[in-house]
Amino acid sequence: MIKVTLNGSNGKMGRVLSKVIHESNEFELVTGISRSISSLNTYSSFDELSEASDVIIDFSHPTQLLPMLNYCKKHHVPVVIATTGYSDEELRIIHEAGAYIPVFYSPNMSLGVNLLLELVSKATVVLEDQFDIEIIERHHNKKIDAPSGTALLIANTINRLLENQKSLVYSRQDKKVARDPSEIGIMCLRGGTIVGEHEVVYIGNDEIIEIKHTALSKEIFAYGALRAAKFIIKQNPGYYGMKDMLKE
Amino acid sequence: MIKVTLNGSNGKMGRVLSKVIHESNEFELVTGISRSISSLNTYSSFDELSEASDVIIDFSHPTQLLPMLNYCKKHHVPVVIATTGYSDEELRIIHEAGAYIPVFYSPNMSLGVNLLLELVSKATVVLEDQFDIEIIERHHNKKIDAPSGTALLIANTINRLLENQKSLVYSRQDKKVARDPSEIGIMCLRGGTIVGEHEVVYIGNDEIIEIKHTALSKEIFAYGALRAAKFIIKQNPGYYGMKDMLKE
Amino acid sequence: MIKVTLNGSNGKMGRVLSKVIHESNEFELVTGISRSISSLNTYSSFDELSEASDVIIDFSHPTQLLPMLNYCKKHHVPVVIATTGYSDEELRIIHEAGAYIPVFYSPNMSLGVNLLLELVSKATVVLEDQFDIEIIERHHNKKIDAPSGTALLIANTINRLLENQKSLVYSRQDKKVARDPSEIGIMCLRGGTIVGEHEVVYIGNDEIIEIKHTALSKEIFAYGALRAAKFIIKQNPGYYGMKDMLKE
Amino acid sequence: MIKVTLNGSNGKMGRVLSKVIHESNEFELVTGISRSISSLNTYSSFDELSEASDVIIDFSHPTQLLPMLNYCKKHHVPVVIATTGYSDEELRIIHEAGAYIPVFYSPNMSLGVNLLLELVSKATVVLEDQFDIEIIERHHNKKIDAPSGTALLIANTINRLLENQKSLVYSRQDKKVARDPSEIGIMCLRGGTIVGEHEVVYIGNDEIIEIKHTALSKEIFAYGALRAAKFIIKQNPGYYGMKDMLKE
Repeated sequence: MIKVTLNGSNGKMGRVLSKVIHESNEFELVTGISRSISSLNTYSSFDELSEASDVIIDFSHPTQLLPMLNYCKKHHVPVVIATTGYSDEELRIIHEAGAYIPVFYSPNMSLGVNLLLELVSKATVVLEDQFDIEIIERHHNKKIDAPSGTALLIANTINRLLENQKSLVYSRQDKKVARDPSEIGIMCLRGGTIVGEHEVVYIGNDEIIEIKHTALSKEIFAYGALRAAKFIIKQNPGYYGMKDMLKE
Repeated sequence: MIKVTLNGSNGKMGRVLSKVIHESNEFELVTGISRSISSLNTYSSFDELSEASDVIIDFSHPTQLLPMLNYCKKHHVPVVIATTGYSDEELRIIHEAGAYIPVFYSPNMSLGVNLLLELVSKATVVLEDQFDIEIIERHHNKKIDAPSGTALLIANTINRLLENQKSLVYSRQDKKVARDPSEIGIMCLRGGTIVGEHEVVYIGNDEIIEIKHTALSKEIFAYGALRAAKFIIKQNPGYYGMKDMLKE
Repeated sequence: MIKVTLNGSNGKMGRVLSKVIHESNEFELVTGISRSISSLNTYSSFDELSEASDVIIDFSHPTQLLPMLNYCKKHHVPVVIATTGYSDEELRIIHEAGAYIPVFYSPNMSLGVNLLLELVSKATVVLEDQFDIEIIERHHNKKIDAPSGTALLIANTINRLLENQKSLVYSRQDKKVARDPSEIGIMCLRGGTIVGEHEVVYIGNDEIIEIKHTALSKEIFAYGALRAAKFIIKQNPGYYGMKDMLKE
Repeated sequence: MIKVTLNGSNGKMGRVLSKVIHESNEFELVTGISRSISSLNTYSSFDELSEASDVIIDFSHPTQLLPMLNYCKKHHVPVVIATTGYSDEELRIIHEAGAYIPVFYSPNMSLGVNLLLELVSKATVVLEDQFDIEIIERHHNKKIDAPSGTALLIANTINRLLENQKSLVYSRQDKKVARDPSEIGIMCLRGGTIVGEHEVVYIGNDEIIEIKHTALSKEIFAYGALRAAKFIIKQNPGYYGMKDMLKE
């Protein structure tokens, strides 16, 4: 059993991760750190933490970064950081912690979304000059953002690989022109309770490649974090991300 | 063998229909009528036509309507009219011809698209008050219209069934609001050589119904016209459309 | 607020329905009947029931049928019966109860699955002689049945409409023959945690119609039962099923 | 303009390639070699060939291999070999020709199918231990083989990457057991005029990755061959395949 200390254990994702760990055969939740203590086995800060663990998983808040990294460095504990919203300075600090301990950082813990980005990168390099690229994302009817952050991440990943940047097109209504090869159409479908789907379509002469990711629950971010935990506890000190884990 | 006279035999769809008839075991092309005579067995007007046929199929031009209907009435020949672009007055004349002969008229001869409209009507009546409705259409990268005429036809078919009309939404980019139940999102994907796909998605609480039509070639309009021909030669005089044929 | 008495309130679907009612603005759970009493507001039999309700919803067991129907007849309460496993004799009794009270019965409470069957019926009648029909169902990797009961229901619904019955084909491996028009291929995909998807594909010459239902949770059966409750409380005494509700 | 000599110019794929070259702005068909001479600019053997070309594309027959390679070596012309059915000895000869000239060989010239294999390889390595893998292929109703050669190629590509081989399962009917993680389900849908679709589905806990290739015509093999031609004329002598081209 891999012993986990969970930073941010009473947050939304913290509670999901706790549940997933309790249902797992490979992981054991040793203790949680949370600003709002609501359960046994939870501390309000790393100062109080006495139990040893094999890895720390962090779904907390940027303000918790320094005490957590200090603890990890002092006790030589690997850490998986899944918190979002860090400043550039904080990202630099995370990176530098890799000199002392194994650090895994990713702003999106979904294994599938990160694999999707890898597959899209490969397909883009091969097909880009002869195939049109379009993105369709589907989400529930309460979602306020359009396009989704992941759809933008996909489009940016594609553009980073290209010499000539493609422009993002969100509507073709009444434009009365043929499609420009230099555009990427992004379609945002909204309805019901769809958790999240992202599909990248490459369309050439009589040939289509489609790469699609479907999330059926928020728990996939917990699964990804646990996979990262299994990965990081085997590594030497260093800074690691999803690309390293997918290369394995 | 069903004997067909083809009005508009040298036009784009006329040539497709000729080819399909030649490959068929059920139909025989007796003769063609065309303003530009380019082959044997073709006449420039109905005045010259002496061969008898079981049905006339019309993929020509509104200007050819009156001589054709006069011929059909005089010789009691059923007619399938697939020409588009008629005025209201011409549509009235077509309707009235049903008093004398069996007349089949549809501006879209695809059996599948017309069935799609029937299925969408059924689904809309059942689901409308609890499910969100979205339309995705996919076409080749040369298409200038967006949305496609068929996508608009679908949206209008839905709205005709509803007391409270839904508004058509073509972009959600940066609107920063949740989806309004009174909207239908229409997404227009363009790329490569896709002939035509139309998908209507009904999304409710944890439940999705999808109805999709895919056209792989223009020949489907010829297949639909021949099916209409088989239908109309069995009917009494009257005015018929796709709904009558699908009810059969 | 529509007042509901829930028969079978501590069963698997009973608990799902309780949860959905509590989250609803239209329904109120007055009381539950359950052989295993585990909560307040629950009785072990209809004899003890004193609270009035607008409708009884039944997700219990065939043994509970008679006391429930007696209560409904005595107090003139409409009933939605979603229990499965009835004998022919019990089904006859349910049917006859329609002489006294409005009775709604369906062995599958999913609105979407029942609509799927209606759409498939329509499509089959129109396309059957010219299109090949195939069924794909996708379920989680724990499911033991293959094909799913719903896939068989779809196939039987298709066959009931046809003069010449189609045979069901589950494997084409190494048969080395072209497809026979008289067969329906049924494909059973299994994997992960997929709740349930059913797709019927009609494939003709260069034209495809696809009709697909996706269930994202078991709660859809609760939603369907509540919709049936709203339907049945407006009806005169009689025996009703999903077809009646979908016709509305 | 890239000057092409086409070996096997009167065969099925030869004629498709001729048509595609004639419609292209980048390629020019200098001459064809064919056992059955049916048009101008065609020779019956390489002995008669006097016109210079930049590349030879071969869709012929294994018996034509040696004279073609001799010609290529003598005149230092790169060659794209798309003929199938070679013996191991012939494959060795093709390989050895790479010592003298740039040789490109692939038994499947579809760019998309080869990319699909690359994407599947990547996804398999990342997901294999936690995701179920299933393959769905769709083809027209005249196809006699099931599964398709490409579906088998996909399954073999997956298995080559795994320590523990997965078994291929073509039917789950009435087995009454849960899915075994060590199996790959292969589903063979047949209907209408579908040219060819291959979809690989990875299904994990609440997460699905789908990778799909759709062929809309046989011309995609011609497009792939022309892309290989553009690739091979820039290379030094050597033996190259699709993997080299996709890596570019």
